[in-house]
Amino acid sequence: MTHPVPLGFQLAGVHCGIKKNPAKEDFTLIACAPGTVAAGVYTQNLVYAAPVALDRQRTPSAEVRVVAINSGNANACTGERGMRDAQEMARLAAAAMNAGEEQALVMSTGVIGVFLPMEKIATGILAAAGSLGDQESSFLSAARGILTTDAGMKIAGRELTIRGKTIRLTGMCKGAGMIGPNMATMLAVVMTDAALTPADAQTALQASADESFNCISVEGHMSTNDTFLLLASGGASAEPLAGDDLQAFRAALLEISIDLAKQIPDDGEGATHLICIEVLGCRTQAAARQIAQAVANSALVKTAVAGGDPNWGRIVSAAGYAGVPFDPSGVDLVVNGHKLYERGSPVAFDAKTVSTAIRASRETSIVLTLREGSAANRFWTSDLTVNYVRFNADYTT
Amino acid sequence: MTHPVPLGFQLAGVHCGIKKNPAKEDFTLIACAPGTVAAGVYTQNLVYAAPVALDRQRTPSAEVRVVAINSGNANACTGERGMRDAQEMARLAAAAMNAGEEQALVMSTGVIGVFLPMEKIATGILAAAGSLGDQESSFLSAARGILTTDAGMKIAGRELTIRGKTIRLTGMCKGAGMIGPNMATMLAVVMTDAALTPADAQTALQASADESFNCISVEGHMSTNDTFLLLASGGASAEPLAGDDLQAFRAALLEISIDLAKQIPDDGEGATHLICIEVLGCRTQAAARQIAQAVANSALVKTAVAGGDPNWGRIVSAAGYAGVPFDPSGVDLVVNGHKLYERGSPVAFDAKTVSTAIRASRETSIVLTLREGSAANRFWTSDLTVNYVRFNADYTT
Repeated sequence: MTHPVPLGFQLAGVHCGIKKNPAKEDFTLIACAPGTVAAGVYTQNLVYAAPVALDRQRTPSAEVRVVAINSGNANACTGERGMRDAQEMARLAAAAMNAGEEQALVMSTGVIGVFLPMEKIATGILAAAGSLGDQESSFLSAARGILTTDAGMKIAGRELTIRGKTIRLTGMCKGAGMIGPNMATMLAVVMTDAALTPADAQTALQASADESFNCISVEGHMSTNDTFLLLASGGASAEPLAGDDLQAFRAALLEISIDLAKQIPDDGEGATHLICIEVLGCRTQAAARQIAQAVANSALVKTAVAGGDPNWGRIVSAAGYAGVPFDPSGVDLVVNGHKLYERGSPVAFDAKTVSTAIRASRETSIVLTLREGSAANRFWTSDLTVNYVRFNADYTT
Repeated sequence: MTHPVPLGFQLAGVHCGIKKNPAKEDFTLIACAPGTVAAGVYTQNLVYAAPVALDRQRTPSAEVRVVAINSGNANACTGERGMRDAQEMARLAAAAMNAGEEQALVMSTGVIGVFLPMEKIATGILAAAGSLGDQESSFLSAARGILTTDAGMKIAGRELTIRGKTIRLTGMCKGAGMIGPNMATMLAVVMTDAALTPADAQTALQASADESFNCISVEGHMSTNDTFLLLASGGASAEPLAGDDLQAFRAALLEISIDLAKQIPDDGEGATHLICIEVLGCRTQAAARQIAQAVANSALVKTAVAGGDPNWGRIVSAAGYAGVPFDPSGVDLVVNGHKLYERGSPVAFDAKTVSTAIRASRETSIVLTLREGSAANRFWTSDLTVNYVRFNADYTT
């Protein structure tokens, strides 16, 4: 699959010295054509980083000209100086594009509590501005420039045809740890050459986030820097989408958002399984999500999957403390196609067969069915392995 | 410290064959004098085990004569047959004491979803009934009989003098995994020879649970079997305590409850640190507890402590997603006596010194001070180590 850059965008990823390894990009610039609409969804953590504070003020916007992103430093918990640094990063990026200061957005990700190295940031902005391109190779270097503990790039693309015109959506995201729901997890950007009004862009983005980035976790720790941006240049169709066309676009946006979001727990720190938890038969979707999230965030469920252990009691008991009322005697559980529990009682099954099935597949499917209603939700998480603990016991020191 | 058995109780712990190792006790009986008052606090998990259902119906009670406890099998998620088994276990224990069927309570802990081996339970009841004693050695075998993955016994004792009479409180508990808050965690029993009305016993027990067993976690997974019983024989003072005497008893009960509760995360599966999180300066105690709990349940905070990593950004950001409104610019953080964060900004500190301090001590102290009010809460948890994951990846298969 190729990832063509939508019309109206140029990108670059460069190394400016925040990461120690000079072969690794740590700074990304996305230049947008005049008139690009931007929408944003942000962390709901009270302790939010300076770049989140700045972008929140500036989106939705009818004209964003540049997005500057650094990795290796989150500019979070850095007080007033952090806010001044974020503003300066935006000012420098806007200046490099001959744009107004308010037309720049910024994103940062990495270690919390360290001031941004502003000289390196300034160098990065100039270097990236000098190497912008609209080829796939530029997109790929940009996608690498936002990574931190990720094992690899997280990118996705969709194309759809609306009224005879090709509309492209191309996106990238990052994140492998400090991933908890109720936000747009970590950093994600979807660029499109569709035309959207700022209000429609914001509504579509929020709806997509709710069923994608808000339905994933690695360990459930909500980050200070989560930001999910939609950039719509209008390069493919000048008139803002409406009616069925807007619906078609929203469907494609949701698809690419889920595609990107799932790549995060699949690359969860130390992960050996991507776990998909479907909760069916609930009274509301919110109830289904709450149960799915409780199962997803249980260390006991996650270690059981890591060990290929069909310990279904942990799954059922996690559902029981999710805070959603339901009748336990109406619960069924199916793991990787094997029914383990039916109407609140254990089903005889061959533990070895199920264990082998879990071990043999990168994806583990957990389907929990209640008998309360017809609403459902899907949630994705990582398993919890020895390597997650090793990695996080020695992150900064 | 010795642990005298309060007047009016006899205990025994025996091996009945549920645990494979014949040297390990797996069945405990507590015989109570006529007129013993019993209060209970139970898991708030919707998916609760059969013994919890039975005891909940029978407490508070003005006359409990026996408590039968097995380890190695939780009798949870076992449907109607599980309920019948719990009733049969109570019936057999009551018969062995020549007591009425309703005068027996039962507790079970161990693997979820396996039916109780009723023949072994029946053997255990007879063997234990035949070896009851009121010496410390009997108490110690009883305390061993309720353990599962625990590294060792968890016991505590207090004595107080009320109106010239010695009142004893002696307690035991178990638990090292599947420990989450909002309940009386796992199994705990405090025996006392004080006299209490059933209503006072229940109120005192709930208040103690709220500041002890409800303020601990290992990985935050709420169990199906949590039960905390208070048994008051009146053996030392026939007249129920009231007024200041009752207050003095309640203070002692809270002390012994905290003593027992802290032993659980200290022995958390794989734990190398007991973490005490104090949250000060909140508007309400509930708010302080909610923040403390979010910090306690963050895998990133727990792995940082395991690695001796003073990664304070993880602590502050966990507080930020606890769901309690506060001003982030008013937050201070002190770890093991070292101030790392003040009024929302980082403080310069020597990371190596703080890291060494964390590594050198079994207990890690995290004090988070807000500037919102004067309410506070303490919460205890374990660190998260490679051995926790190893242990839980291969628990049943």
